[in-house]
Amino acid sequence: MSKLAIWTYDWVPVGPRGFVRDLRLRWACEEAGRTYEVRTIPFEGRDANHLLSQPFGQVPFIDDGGLEIFESGAGLLHLAENSQSLMPAEAAGQAETLQWTIAALNSVEMVSVPWWFLMLSGETENKLTDWLTQRLDHLEKVLSTREWLAAGRFTVADLLMVDVLRVPLVRALGDRPATEAYVTRVLQRPAFQKALADQIAHFAEADAARGP
Amino acid sequence: MSKLAIWTYDWVPVGPRGFVRDLRLRWACEEAGRTYEVRTIPFEGRDANHLLSQPFGQVPFIDDGGLEIFESGAGLLHLAENSQSLMPAEAAGQAETLQWTIAALNSVEMVSVPWWFLMLSGETENKLTDWLTQRLDHLEKVLSTREWLAAGRFTVADLLMVDVLRVPLVRALGDRPATEAYVTRVLQRPAFQKALADQIAHFAEADAARGP
Repeated sequence: MSKLAIWTYDWVPVGPRGFVRDLRLRWACEEAGRTYEVRTIPFEGRDANHLLSQPFGQVPFIDDGGLEIFESGAGLLHLAENSQSLMPAEAAGQAETLQWTIAALNSVEMVSVPWWFLMLSGETENKLTDWLTQRLDHLEKVLSTREWLAAGRFTVADLLMVDVLRVPLVRALGDRPATEAYVTRVLQRPAFQKALADQIAHFAEADAARGP
Repeated sequence: MSKLAIWTYDWVPVGPRGFVRDLRLRWACEEAGRTYEVRTIPFEGRDANHLLSQPFGQVPFIDDGGLEIFESGAGLLHLAENSQSLMPAEAAGQAETLQWTIAALNSVEMVSVPWWFLMLSGETENKLTDWLTQRLDHLEKVLSTREWLAAGRFTVADLLMVDVLRVPLVRALGDRPATEAYVTRVLQRPAFQKALADQIAHFAEADAARGP
């Protein structure tokens, strides 16, 4: 296996800790048993500094043996191509995993993140609420009939969908028992717990280095 | 090559014609020289009827020799795996194409579609405008330095990004000469022109079949 680096910020405020998207890639590596190192770019001045590596000024991006990839969704699909822990080997399972990975990015997160953004901006009448509710209701129907999104087993699609759904405001919108059981079950995976603890520790160390 | 079917609605109102997402897959097939047939599901009652095939009640989905895939982004990546017209064969070019395809879905469209939705709902002060402006400005910087998003050539990432950017309200937001030149250039491709004409004709035939 080639040498893998996951790039994230050197520090972030307390608010987003546990939710910075390098967590998706840490989690995928833990599931896949893939070793990796975490490298950092400065959070301060991020807009000016790292637009060369990431045209939208975001983290994470990865370097897999010299192959650089930004967008967490693209990094996940890249890692999944090389790990049957994340994606089945047979064509039908791969197609199912791919469609649900894209559904997480483009049918659920495309609504949930702007909805969440409007909530945080203090929108009293959030015009995206009905749309998000509808998407989550559709997903609840799917999850009422099966344990995993694709291929009858845990895949990178579950990893990504749960990372989208676990955002506290999203998770609290309505009462969907099958979805809640699914999110709870997936978040108990040791690979997620390790990735989460490692991200929290990473930013806590940055606090310590900054001094009082 | 296996037999490929693209599923879309039997009819839609005039408004979305030319923008229903089966166009993305038609376009990709035209670029790839891949033959396909178009099959339809009823537009009326679509929520109840086809949730079995597409859990979010959307079109398109494809059937590629028995392999069923929903989400236009997933269908595009699937088609691109089998066509060097859409994605280069070498690993670096594939990684670049993948990251820009996901960027179109999750960094640009994730903002542009909810922004457009708020515009249509008559929002006087659209709180997503600054965010979308920032994303489009970042993209303008990239397109000021090169002709194509990935691998120095046309790929499925350009197809998808241009389909996201060509939405009239999005295209009219601000003045970005490199982006506008890019969109104009890509939309002149014969494969897009054919896919567009075919979609328009498909829905016009449905009008004719409905009678006066």
